[in-house]
Amino acid sequence: MFAHNKRLQYTVRVAEPNPGLANLMLEQFGGPQGELAAALRYFTQALAEDDPGRKDMLMDIATEELSHLEVIGTIVAMLNKGAKGELAEATQEAAELYRAINGAGNDSHVTQVLYGGGPALTNSGGQLWTAGYIDSIGDPSADLRSNIAAEARAKIVYERLINVTDDAGVKEALGFLMTREVAHQLSFEKALYSMQPNFPPGKLPPRQEFARVYFNMSQGEGDMRGPWNSDEQFQYISDREQQLAVDGGSGLPETALTPEQSVAVEQMAARTASDPQSNPMTGAELGSGQLDADEPAGRTS
Amino acid sequence: MFAHNKRLQYTVRVAEPNPGLANLMLEQFGGPQGELAAALRYFTQALAEDDPGRKDMLMDIATEELSHLEVIGTIVAMLNKGAKGELAEATQEAAELYRAINGAGNDSHVTQVLYGGGPALTNSGGQLWTAGYIDSIGDPSADLRSNIAAEARAKIVYERLINVTDDAGVKEALGFLMTREVAHQLSFEKALYSMQPNFPPGKLPPRQEFARVYFNMSQGEGDMRGPWNSDEQFQYISDREQQLAVDGGSGLPETALTPEQSVAVEQMAARTASDPQSNPMTGAELGSGQLDADEPAGRTS
Amino acid sequence: MFAHNKRLQYTVRVAEPNPGLANLMLEQFGGPQGELAAALRYFTQALAEDDPGRKDMLMDIATEELSHLEVIGTIVAMLNKGAKGELAEATQEAAELYRAINGAGNDSHVTQVLYGGGPALTNSGGQLWTAGYIDSIGDPSADLRSNIAAEARAKIVYERLINVTDDAGVKEALGFLMTREVAHQLSFEKALYSMQPNFPPGKLPPRQEFARVYFNMSQGEGDMRGPWNSDEQFQYISDREQQLAVDGGSGLPETALTPEQSVAVEQMAARTASDPQSNPMTGAELGSGQLDADEPAGRTS
Amino acid sequence: MFAHNKRLQYTVRVAEPNPGLANLMLEQFGGPQGELAAALRYFTQALAEDDPGRKDMLMDIATEELSHLEVIGTIVAMLNKGAKGELAEATQEAAELYRAINGAGNDSHVTQVLYGGGPALTNSGGQLWTAGYIDSIGDPSADLRSNIAAEARAKIVYERLINVTDDAGVKEALGFLMTREVAHQLSFEKALYSMQPNFPPGKLPPRQEFARVYFNMSQGEGDMRGPWNSDEQFQYISDREQQLAVDGGSGLPETALTPEQSVAVEQMAARTASDPQSNPMTGAELGSGQLDADEPAGRTS
Amino acid sequence: MFAHNKRLQYTVRVAEPNPGLANLMLEQFGGPQGELAAALRYFTQALAEDDPGRKDMLMDIATEELSHLEVIGTIVAMLNKGAKGELAEATQEAAELYRAINGAGNDSHVTQVLYGGGPALTNSGGQLWTAGYIDSIGDPSADLRSNIAAEARAKIVYERLINVTDDAGVKEALGFLMTREVAHQLSFEKALYSMQPNFPPGKLPPRQEFARVYFNMSQGEGDMRGPWNSDEQFQYISDREQQLAVDGGSGLPETALTPEQSVAVEQMAARTASDPQSNPMTGAELGSGQLDADEPAGRTS
Amino acid sequence: MFAHNKRLQYTVRVAEPNPGLANLMLEQFGGPQGELAAALRYFTQALAEDDPGRKDMLMDIATEELSHLEVIGTIVAMLNKGAKGELAEATQEAAELYRAINGAGNDSHVTQVLYGGGPALTNSGGQLWTAGYIDSIGDPSADLRSNIAAEARAKIVYERLINVTDDAGVKEALGFLMTREVAHQLSFEKALYSMQPNFPPGKLPPRQEFARVYFNMSQGEGDMRGPWNSDEQFQYISDREQQLAVDGGSGLPETALTPEQSVAVEQMAARTASDPQSNPMTGAELGSGQLDADEPAGRTS
Repeated sequence: MFAHNKRLQYTVRVAEPNPGLANLMLEQFGGPQGELAAALRYFTQALAEDDPGRKDMLMDIATEELSHLEVIGTIVAMLNKGAKGELAEATQEAAELYRAINGAGNDSHVTQVLYGGGPALTNSGGQLWTAGYIDSIGDPSADLRSNIAAEARAKIVYERLINVTDDAGVKEALGFLMTREVAHQLSFEKALYSMQPNFPPGKLPPRQEFARVYFNMSQGEGDMRGPWNSDEQFQYISDREQQLAVDGGSGLPETALTPEQSVAVEQMAARTASDPQSNPMTGAELGSGQLDADEPAGRTS
Repeated sequence: MFAHNKRLQYTVRVAEPNPGLANLMLEQFGGPQGELAAALRYFTQALAEDDPGRKDMLMDIATEELSHLEVIGTIVAMLNKGAKGELAEATQEAAELYRAINGAGNDSHVTQVLYGGGPALTNSGGQLWTAGYIDSIGDPSADLRSNIAAEARAKIVYERLINVTDDAGVKEALGFLMTREVAHQLSFEKALYSMQPNFPPGKLPPRQEFARVYFNMSQGEGDMRGPWNSDEQFQYISDREQQLAVDGGSGLPETALTPEQSVAVEQMAARTASDPQSNPMTGAELGSGQLDADEPAGRTS
Repeated sequence: MFAHNKRLQYTVRVAEPNPGLANLMLEQFGGPQGELAAALRYFTQALAEDDPGRKDMLMDIATEELSHLEVIGTIVAMLNKGAKGELAEATQEAAELYRAINGAGNDSHVTQVLYGGGPALTNSGGQLWTAGYIDSIGDPSADLRSNIAAEARAKIVYERLINVTDDAGVKEALGFLMTREVAHQLSFEKALYSMQPNFPPGKLPPRQEFARVYFNMSQGEGDMRGPWNSDEQFQYISDREQQLAVDGGSGLPETALTPEQSVAVEQMAARTASDPQSNPMTGAELGSGQLDADEPAGRTS
Repeated sequence: MFAHNKRLQYTVRVAEPNPGLANLMLEQFGGPQGELAAALRYFTQALAEDDPGRKDMLMDIATEELSHLEVIGTIVAMLNKGAKGELAEATQEAAELYRAINGAGNDSHVTQVLYGGGPALTNSGGQLWTAGYIDSIGDPSADLRSNIAAEARAKIVYERLINVTDDAGVKEALGFLMTREVAHQLSFEKALYSMQPNFPPGKLPPRQEFARVYFNMSQGEGDMRGPWNSDEQFQYISDREQQLAVDGGSGLPETALTPEQSVAVEQMAARTASDPQSNPMTGAELGSGQLDADEPAGRTS
Repeated sequence: MFAHNKRLQYTVRVAEPNPGLANLMLEQFGGPQGELAAALRYFTQALAEDDPGRKDMLMDIATEELSHLEVIGTIVAMLNKGAKGELAEATQEAAELYRAINGAGNDSHVTQVLYGGGPALTNSGGQLWTAGYIDSIGDPSADLRSNIAAEARAKIVYERLINVTDDAGVKEALGFLMTREVAHQLSFEKALYSMQPNFPPGKLPPRQEFARVYFNMSQGEGDMRGPWNSDEQFQYISDREQQLAVDGGSGLPETALTPEQSVAVEQMAARTASDPQSNPMTGAELGSGQLDADEPAGRTS
Repeated sequence: MFAHNKRLQYTVRVAEPNPGLANLMLEQFGGPQGELAAALRYFTQALAEDDPGRKDMLMDIATEELSHLEVIGTIVAMLNKGAKGELAEATQEAAELYRAINGAGNDSHVTQVLYGGGPALTNSGGQLWTAGYIDSIGDPSADLRSNIAAEARAKIVYERLINVTDDAGVKEALGFLMTREVAHQLSFEKALYSMQPNFPPGKLPPRQEFARVYFNMSQGEGDMRGPWNSDEQFQYISDREQQLAVDGGSGLPETALTPEQSVAVEQMAARTASDPQSNPMTGAELGSGQLDADEPAGRTS
């Protein structure tokens, strides 16, 4: 069960109103790398996890991320508080409010007009949050790697927001939030490697003949070798023929049909056959004035 | 530039028609962990990457994933080929076709009726593919970790599909595709660690006072210690008070308003104030027959 | 800040494994009327709310809804626990697992194959949760009504789930969750009516000449009168002419253009004009074999 | 059946071209609180409604909302008409057109470049309209409340648009549209309360022991009492222990497995167990240069 | 302005309850090729259209499609009417209702549990309708072609539904709706070709050197020639070298940076450089037990 | 199988950094009419196509569109390269970077902060790419028309981008890409008409009595006649009565219920009946201060 304490995990201090900055902050509220995604990612994993250590850790971090969601949402609300009042009360002329709504050069018009200045579950461009952002699949060797990556991404987006933020209090809080992503990544790393083996992920072994092959699919000036495709690590295949039909077959699909289906499929093929020998008049010609009015229509070869 | 060879990278051999199995295969065609997501993930990263080694590797693997998309899509098309013909040509009674459409017990009715038996850019439940599945953010210390995680997830979903597949040819092709995810993960791992340092991700250092702290946010029976929150690695904080306002402040938000904004905000507050002393009649009472017809409406304290 | 206690708000007791029932339960986990939507609806409102009573109430209820999300998610995990293990470990033949995946007659195949049996942020049809479900707009006279309606909807969906659930423990927990929606609705009703006036919503008065008019737009057998369109309450307008251009104008749009724009608009109109006097040959004729090969193409009137 | 009259329900008069204002207007065309959502909400309810009075009312109002969709869409088209011509005909230099496209400070670039200046089914930020905005569930005690709330929200968004609009004709039309939302809300209120009882919604009674309880889940400075949680109305529970496992149970989930499932689950648990006694080397250490080259890798406790 | 007549454009006669069939019908209600998409496609085009003939035609057909939406939605409601009552009133045991909900083998469980048996704005798989289905862009030479294609698609989906429908009354109504798509396509064809020229679409001429070239990008067994790539119509280029950098340049991108940007870009490149000479230990090795405990970590070449 | 050559199909030359222009270019990268949609549209059709000519053509063009996606994505990356470096390295003051992020007046802030300057799979407003953009349904008489329309739309969007682009190298590449859409349209037209007949689409014949009827549904000043509704082509029906129930029936829906269902439906009707004779007090009155405190609540007629 969750309980809530009215004090924030980190005190939010906003120096001055700034709806444009508020809008950018939405990246970490309702954006793909934001705190909602983080909290729900770990919370849903925790619910289905049976390993006691991982379950506990996931719920610990999920709960903290919810608390971070509260911090970033509070920043948004504070930066917007004045503008919200002015729009709701119409204390200025329409022309002035219009300029205020559109002047930030970003999507704060959506935040103001549609969401009334509150923290919306969108990114800074107004894109609605979607559960498509959550990539949990219920296997720890995959989910822990996903969590490590998610923390890395969140760290970077915080870094960018810090780089564009001038407000000292906001910057300080963002620094705290960014740092916690690093700490969480450390925990997820430890959890991953305390499960041995964790590579390859899952249970089924790979087919050995294809597990250490590197196909050089993109060729030309710029081809590079490195540890990711070195001869020490991989069989490196550049020959285009050897990249094809690596099972040794024809490379062409084969299937079976019931007799009834064969009839149906052939009937459909005949009905929809294109005639490669024809040269039909088309809509493009009708539409481009290329037709000579004396030329018979519907000509075929 | 891309070029296409009509032979597949792996020969597809389908033993018998099976629209239900075809529908499940869509997970790796238009699902979140599928080949389209993989190909586009690496392709878009490659376009913006300047490091020559990573750029080459990303385009190599993107191109291979496109070729895998072709393999899995071909499997779907082969498994559906007969059913497609039967529905298009209506070679059976309506009642029989109705049973065929609905009999698989999964969403193959969508595949048949809406998509005509072709490989659709959806998962097995008919959910449209969305770019929200792609989490690239343009930083290699994050994106490579995202790629490692994505390969791990794809490996697991292939494993599950293999576990439920009875068709030997399909199973064999799925085994190839699963194995390649392992190989790609190996390459991404090498690429990540050939960039040093890669942790913490990005450039800005974390705030040291918060980087090695573990907040025990979820408490009760089931609390566990392990390397992810051990005293060796972390300062472990269970005291609820010490988890709050870790900056040492009040934990309550502070902001500034312009004088005009203050007036507007106060005006709005007064206009929309709730009266905690009242006990208003509400719609619930009007709707629940709890009212005594003689009781005056609109009573307040 | 949020804190988590490992005990649930309501004990989950599941009598036997049932992946099909688990899948239905997702409606109240990641569905539009589910607990995630509820929790986020109130939480985001709380962050932007300045009225102290409403802010406190919103956070109280948001926190409880998070705890309900945990209860319903735990039900999903428990109902799926066995099937998850069987698929991950492949302890049965592929054909048997295939039947298990598809046998429920609903979308549990998505839950199993894609999400590994964990509670996914989707509804029972696999539709990804989207913030489009959240309709908060930052005005209490609207948001409280939205909350009242949301609780009513959630109560009904729980009622339906209870009606189809045979498992006594699950049914009991659903009864608790359903009841809490009723209690929350009561609180929101009190909060709405303790703000006076709250109708019409917002600040701007309606235009009196249109505020008590009812337009009888749908006519024919079935036209009904009732308090929603009674003469006592409304001016009832059935005359089609009186429904049109109720401002007394022409009903036709008027606009202004700059001189440069007028030139551009006219140029575009001329370039793209359709000729009502023509009878052009079209693609339909080319495609339908209606053409006499001797008939000249491109004929116009 | 629908019929259309070419005159609008309200005459649209636009004083001057303004693509930026046009873009804001999209909130009430293709935005979540806009006229399309309103029309479809009532129309779909009407189709499934059997109560003759409600069915008639819902279709009346749905039809009017479609007519409002036409009014707001016409406003968008008129405000954009000049800019549309200029872009289509390229009557200005590229640099000038570029400035025009981006100069509004909002998302009118999407409206111009992608939608050619026409009214698009998006909100003002370009977010595509989604049926996730429609919350009808087919029960009148819920749907009528949803409709009341929807009208309240739409009223507020119109109010905000009026507050930022300088064009007298547009402002007047917006005033009409806003007023009609108030009138519709009145009708829906009458319809709701003419169905008695309508609270609690639906048919199943709540569990009495939980129906009048208020859990004080968010605690600290700012805790408030009011009619929404007063002792007169509710049993108010602040004690954290009493908030937990309110059924009197353990608060811990219980489930059953078949013997075969137990084996599979235990096998999975063993295979994926994390070792809490270990201190594994992790990717973070490999990536952060913290390794002493002489220290053996893979150390465990 | 729209007006509504309570009689349908086509009488709906449903022989017997069939929630499974109802669910399939949703394809033409809230599916991508359904009547809502059609109505909104033409309606939004009509609002922005200035050509008087096209504007009138678009509004005529939009209005008819709305009336078809009503017909198909009524079919859904009628097929579901009984099941809706049974679920709402719980007139059967839970186990029986559970079977009814899941027995159709398609997604009627979503229609019943979430939408209460009403016509939902989803396709038959529960995918929410999205404005991404609407491809209008505000140019008649494109939009009319889009409309022609949309009518063709809708015709086919109706054909498939007819093929699987056993209910005579439903089949007859579907036949009417299918036929009207053909009639609309005829009108759109006439409208397209009455605008001359309409090819190439728009105003800007193509670059002649590339307008009649066909690149044979996919090569191998199966290469075909036909009128779509014949020498009569096209310059056919199979040589891979001639397909590359067809402008005669290097095929490699070139850009310019400001001096400050050059510094930043180089700094980023150095910071994130991968070392192709290294052979770093990676997480895969840590996770796969391939490490010899005596081997020093962090080795590079 | 796909192979990749590192040279582009068209050399990208960018004159100077321009993040705002980069953002607009996303329309043809991740927008609905962009190259990703084109490539996937043809690729998925090719996989399911059995006609050898069409299959080859679809794969040829799909492969070329992938190569165009690479060109447009490279343009985005080049235009953003400098800004990406400056944000990542924070080589400027926060206030300056904030101005740079927001100064373009469009959504380049999303491109920079969220996507790190890389080409994102969104349109220029940040809307995530969705497979809802792809309208393939697996029937060549429909899909080829969809392809023709898609090429027309893409041509127009390129035309608009060219009109607003000042950079000579970008403009030239856009001209190439635009031209190729024209060439592809030509091929699809030939392919469509080489399949005879292709109209009406599909196999089922229309019902002749409705195939050549035009319903004049939108009436009033502006009614027009043209070839799309001429007497020569169509039976033109303006009489509103003749537009209704064109099957000759009542226009009212009819259905059947089982006896058990009839009971349930009647029970539900009774339970939820609205009372047209009542005049209930409502929430609107409670909220608007219209109540006389002495007036009894809950009054009904």
